[in-house]
Amino acid sequence: MFRHTVMFRWSTASTPEQRSALTAALAQLPAGIPTIRRYHVGPDAGINDGNFDFAVVADFDDVDGYLVYRDHPEHQRVIVELIAPFVETRAAVQYDLGD
Amino acid sequence: MFRHTVMFRWSTASTPEQRSALTAALAQLPAGIPTIRRYHVGPDAGINDGNFDFAVVADFDDVDGYLVYRDHPEHQRVIVELIAPFVETRAAVQYDLGD
Repeated sequence: MFRHTVMFRWSTASTPEQRSALTAALAQLPAGIPTIRRYHVGPDAGINDGNFDFAVVADFDDVDGYLVYRDHPEHQRVIVELIAPFVETRAAVQYDLGD
Repeated sequence: MFRHTVMFRWSTASTPEQRSALTAALAQLPAGIPTIRRYHVGPDAGINDGNFDFAVVADFDDVDGYLVYRDHPEHQRVIVELIAPFVETRAAVQYDLGD
């Protein structure tokens, strides 16, 4: 399988309401993007200093499944409306799960 | 369950040999740290510009399972010997998987 991981640090423009709206919108994506096999998002648990604020880990059968997700209009809408305006820093890796 | 995600950007001091040694050392950790439930590491696939270089995603039953991993001597040895000398940037999030 193939995994997409991304983390964000929110800017000061980010509010609790924005973060809740983002989490809710992301939770809807698996229902509309059939190539998603596993999808888990959430805020950092606050255990370690220096962490980023939010993570998304999404698993697909293969690279093509990931690309469908990456470029899907509903995903792009979430990025443009609910992520991009509030991101200070973004970190991402896609990698093969080797299984 | 509870998930630990971390990504690295390697400095120019990093070599292919170092990266292979790290991947091999990380692959040994689940055998020695029984609280690890799922463990997948790998280099970025090179699909998107601006990505980090390497990701680790580790799943545990709960926060305590993660803390055993975080503080385990063998994990700490890998960090000190094979990660820290070569890291330019690190990004991490721990989060509840909600299941």
